[in-house]
Amino acid sequence: VIIVLKPEATADDAQAFLRRIEDAGLQPLYLPGSERTVLGALGDERVLARLNLESHPLVESLKPILTPYKRVSREMQGHDTRVDIGPVTVGGREFVVMAGPCAVESAAQIGATAAAIKSAGAVVLRGGAFKPRTSPYSFQGHGGEALELMAEAAREHGLPIVSEIVDPSDLALMEQHVDALQVGARNMQNFRLLQAVGRSHLPVLLKRGIAATIEELLLAAEYILDAGNPNVILCERGIRTFETATRNTLDLNAVALLKQRSHLPVVVDPSHGTGIRDLVPPMAKAAIGAGADGLIIEVHIDPAAALSDGPQSMNPQGFAELMQGIRPFVTAAGRELAA
Amino acid sequence: VIIVLKPEATADDAQAFLRRIEDAGLQPLYLPGSERTVLGALGDERVLARLNLESHPLVESLKPILTPYKRVSREMQGHDTRVDIGPVTVGGREFVVMAGPCAVESAAQIGATAAAIKSAGAVVLRGGAFKPRTSPYSFQGHGGEALELMAEAAREHGLPIVSEIVDPSDLALMEQHVDALQVGARNMQNFRLLQAVGRSHLPVLLKRGIAATIEELLLAAEYILDAGNPNVILCERGIRTFETATRNTLDLNAVALLKQRSHLPVVVDPSHGTGIRDLVPPMAKAAIGAGADGLIIEVHIDPAAALSDGPQSMNPQGFAELMQGIRPFVTAAGRELAA
Amino acid sequence: VIIVLKPEATADDAQAFLRRIEDAGLQPLYLPGSERTVLGALGDERVLARLNLESHPLVESLKPILTPYKRVSREMQGHDTRVDIGPVTVGGREFVVMAGPCAVESAAQIGATAAAIKSAGAVVLRGGAFKPRTSPYSFQGHGGEALELMAEAAREHGLPIVSEIVDPSDLALMEQHVDALQVGARNMQNFRLLQAVGRSHLPVLLKRGIAATIEELLLAAEYILDAGNPNVILCERGIRTFETATRNTLDLNAVALLKQRSHLPVVVDPSHGTGIRDLVPPMAKAAIGAGADGLIIEVHIDPAAALSDGPQSMNPQGFAELMQGIRPFVTAAGRELAA
Amino acid sequence: VIIVLKPEATADDAQAFLRRIEDAGLQPLYLPGSERTVLGALGDERVLARLNLESHPLVESLKPILTPYKRVSREMQGHDTRVDIGPVTVGGREFVVMAGPCAVESAAQIGATAAAIKSAGAVVLRGGAFKPRTSPYSFQGHGGEALELMAEAAREHGLPIVSEIVDPSDLALMEQHVDALQVGARNMQNFRLLQAVGRSHLPVLLKRGIAATIEELLLAAEYILDAGNPNVILCERGIRTFETATRNTLDLNAVALLKQRSHLPVVVDPSHGTGIRDLVPPMAKAAIGAGADGLIIEVHIDPAAALSDGPQSMNPQGFAELMQGIRPFVTAAGRELAA
Repeated sequence: VIIVLKPEATADDAQAFLRRIEDAGLQPLYLPGSERTVLGALGDERVLARLNLESHPLVESLKPILTPYKRVSREMQGHDTRVDIGPVTVGGREFVVMAGPCAVESAAQIGATAAAIKSAGAVVLRGGAFKPRTSPYSFQGHGGEALELMAEAAREHGLPIVSEIVDPSDLALMEQHVDALQVGARNMQNFRLLQAVGRSHLPVLLKRGIAATIEELLLAAEYILDAGNPNVILCERGIRTFETATRNTLDLNAVALLKQRSHLPVVVDPSHGTGIRDLVPPMAKAAIGAGADGLIIEVHIDPAAALSDGPQSMNPQGFAELMQGIRPFVTAAGRELAA
Repeated sequence: VIIVLKPEATADDAQAFLRRIEDAGLQPLYLPGSERTVLGALGDERVLARLNLESHPLVESLKPILTPYKRVSREMQGHDTRVDIGPVTVGGREFVVMAGPCAVESAAQIGATAAAIKSAGAVVLRGGAFKPRTSPYSFQGHGGEALELMAEAAREHGLPIVSEIVDPSDLALMEQHVDALQVGARNMQNFRLLQAVGRSHLPVLLKRGIAATIEELLLAAEYILDAGNPNVILCERGIRTFETATRNTLDLNAVALLKQRSHLPVVVDPSHGTGIRDLVPPMAKAAIGAGADGLIIEVHIDPAAALSDGPQSMNPQGFAELMQGIRPFVTAAGRELAA
Repeated sequence: VIIVLKPEATADDAQAFLRRIEDAGLQPLYLPGSERTVLGALGDERVLARLNLESHPLVESLKPILTPYKRVSREMQGHDTRVDIGPVTVGGREFVVMAGPCAVESAAQIGATAAAIKSAGAVVLRGGAFKPRTSPYSFQGHGGEALELMAEAAREHGLPIVSEIVDPSDLALMEQHVDALQVGARNMQNFRLLQAVGRSHLPVLLKRGIAATIEELLLAAEYILDAGNPNVILCERGIRTFETATRNTLDLNAVALLKQRSHLPVVVDPSHGTGIRDLVPPMAKAAIGAGADGLIIEVHIDPAAALSDGPQSMNPQGFAELMQGIRPFVTAAGRELAA
Repeated sequence: VIIVLKPEATADDAQAFLRRIEDAGLQPLYLPGSERTVLGALGDERVLARLNLESHPLVESLKPILTPYKRVSREMQGHDTRVDIGPVTVGGREFVVMAGPCAVESAAQIGATAAAIKSAGAVVLRGGAFKPRTSPYSFQGHGGEALELMAEAAREHGLPIVSEIVDPSDLALMEQHVDALQVGARNMQNFRLLQAVGRSHLPVLLKRGIAATIEELLLAAEYILDAGNPNVILCERGIRTFETATRNTLDLNAVALLKQRSHLPVVVDPSHGTGIRDLVPPMAKAAIGAGADGLIIEVHIDPAAALSDGPQSMNPQGFAELMQGIRPFVTAAGRELAA
């Protein structure tokens, strides 16, 4: 780390800092300038963090040299991580499409949706049992019952399941029914939940928070890996900006950057990323261009009757057309659709 | 709610919508225009939500007329709510200052801090036992032990305590030791946690999420009231914007607007709201001008040695000066410092 | 427009509003509700704007039904507009790549770059003569001399030119040398400049401001069309958000939405949109997926020696590889590279 | 500046950089680490900018040590700059309130407004002659005629004038009629305009752009000082964020920080900063707490009839109450109202 001292820091102050750095077992550096004195401290960043140099009244700013994440970093592991959701591998040559309703509403709904997305070419079933909703008056999901309905539909159609977990106390229940745990955008920094899924044997689909930086997303993933679970899939689903014409701003820059900085697979959610049904197909294609390893898309047998997220859900026919539409882009990317 | 239909919607389509609105027991309105047909549906908004009109392919947009929150609304209750934290009342004529360290580090640290803030004029002790941290490698708080140390220091100095709860499973433990539960910015939309604190007998200090709108903050409070707990204090602590010169952008507009829209008390956290020690005093004064009912400020006996948030923590002397400095502003606001 | 009155507005107040609406030649609508009275005023929006209803103390909010832009709207003109830059058509079946240095630095530099981009397949030469720079101490461009150097290089290689205009007083000079006028992001709401280029016979490449909404971009284009120039190309070049890992956040949602809402062609600038050379190729592919009509890319013969924007500039080899890399995506989009 | 090299940079690469730094007359520093090599280059930053180190393929990042602005910096000049607008001094002990309509509409309107604001205690008349408007269909101001009307009203009431300039070609006309030139938020990075007002003998009120960082605002002011005009007043008027409940987010952190980093006076525009009439008084008080040197407030004799910005304009009575309301806060800040 580089330490810029305030103009009022004296040479003696600087020497005191250098001794403190050295005493902590780090390599000190001294760079006196005409307007500011700059110090360096090289070595293990956990030790550095303990020095709390940024709190010192004579320190103007700290400039870290290394990334604060380690295990998720491409520098730590050069090759791509592949994560298995049941029989489906995310992060390899195959491009993976996950689909399903925002919320599981009934046996008929989830069954028909599973059949439709399977037939159109999706290979993982998504669906919400526990729904985090902005208003207490909105539909909150059917909970455990929804998990059972979804598990049954998935078995019948031979699809593995991904579903959102919202509380550590639901982990055992979730593990009975699903093949992958989703951590939603609102919970990306619910660290207890990250630690809980970090102790699970199931893979984790980690969604970026609406105001989370790319670095914070990687640190959230680091929590999961640090707790023992290496099977994390990152998911870009749009961030909150000043633009209100779309529900969120899908940040595909993040996809391209995450693929460079991390070895973890990255999927894109163009449904939440746009909030507008008609924008899902073009942004699905854009995601492929940006380097995504897969998509997660909201499909409902009757969007006009959906209990949540109707405006961004596709109907089965629209989804089938989307699957046809993305095929040449998957090929252009040198990949093939998982089937 | 006002419903704008797409240009392709016919008169028959409009009639079908109107029947659906009427069948749901709502009052339908029909406003055919030259370029768009506009419909209205007046009545209970929970019924409206169930109609899922926004999901219909022929609906261009929905424009709500009423706010989605009720219990927290100034229209529901004209007079100000007063919330008691132990013997201290927030939301009345007295202006309340809460202070203490980001994290409880040791008996000596919390004891000395409690003495210092009491002597300077603070009336509530804040301190973290469970710390949500962006990196898994940062200090995470001393947990239950910290609660005990803080409770002892508080007893000795006759101060009530506010401390952050990060998981519903900690509620019983927290209730043993603290006088008010803080829900942190990262958990503002952790709805399980909101429901849990909504069932507590303790008051709740609810911090605005870094990317939460004012409406979302009020809906989060609505969760707590809806679960049975009317004692909620709202807290503005800065939002995330493009500006990086400060840690967050303290949104004092929100304070003025919240005081108009809601009957709940509002306090301001200028420590997190700026992230820079030297900006805390001016922004504390600014908060008073904007109409805040109190402040929550990070104070550490030795900020340069703080295990977290050192750069924004004040030392006891700085805090004592801040208390002197805000006094004339509290008077200008027609209030007096709680003592 | 829908007008929501404040709760304190009486039936008489509502009648007064309705008379005012009717007197202005508009169709009035009256929708009394239990908590709010809602009024409507249907008709020409310029007349509505003159009523200044939003300023009235009894008006809670106005909810517009129609878009504020007209000439640029897809509803006004269903078919795509095609804009010619010299012999190159933007907005048709062909996908157009424009390339060149951020700034024209010397005859040798612009000549070699023109040769390189032509050989790689670009069909329009871009280059800055007048450079808007954040700091007064940064290189500001070689001005008129740069225009001459660029014109010469363009003639030699048979490429039309696009270059930025920063002040109305430069229009005549620009018109002597370039084939299209670029209005930069910082000037998107320099309305004098928009009116000036609106009176030019040259096509205009209009870049979205870093904090401009999609609606504001369309209104800026409306200024140009309203002044008499129908040949506008919209350009998404990244917006400013909280994310700092990339220079800007490239908003490809905007591309997909602009193609739906407007008949004007849309190109993407992945160089400014990312600020990072290695992200340009994936985001160029993503732009094609999102539905862009073309790209504008910074290329420098020696990025390490560039006087501005070096970190995001590609060298000729990198650009040639990018052109190879995007080809299958252009085909996947059912288009072909302009040549 | 600190230069972090990419992991693949060799010791020879580092030596080449060091020679280049030394050849440019700067002091080179070499800090080899286990994961990254870090270099330093100390000296004049204009020379550094010419080295274009950030463009080099082996450079991972540059970390500047010093601010990019000089003349506006508190380090350059420790004492506060005072700027005279006619007989009124901004930046001294007196707190200055400027007020007037968004746009000059008629002799009667500007005359009555001037009388009203003078009587309430404002000391500078503001009013727009040239109005930058988002839509080409909105009222654009009465131009030169408005300047004459405003000059007459100002003379009659003994008030100096501040009005917005939108194009360098209007400078001579503006200089005939006004006492201070306002550069609006949309033109904060219209560098030709900054250079033009930098050559004027009139003081400049420079508004922060809606997406401009504090550093960019200071660099815009640096343009004006660098062109020869030291009389710049900075104005915080709200930034664009995700929050839509208010028109802008008034960033009072910026006021407190600007007062620390720069010697220039800072005023606040709570009218644009909130966009809501009822929020103007509390935010005016908040601005005083944050350390502002003055306010600029929109006042209209009949806001419901205003041709622009009606919803945020106060009527004369409201403004008189605001002036009464802020008085104790001005006193609390140790200042007095200019009269």
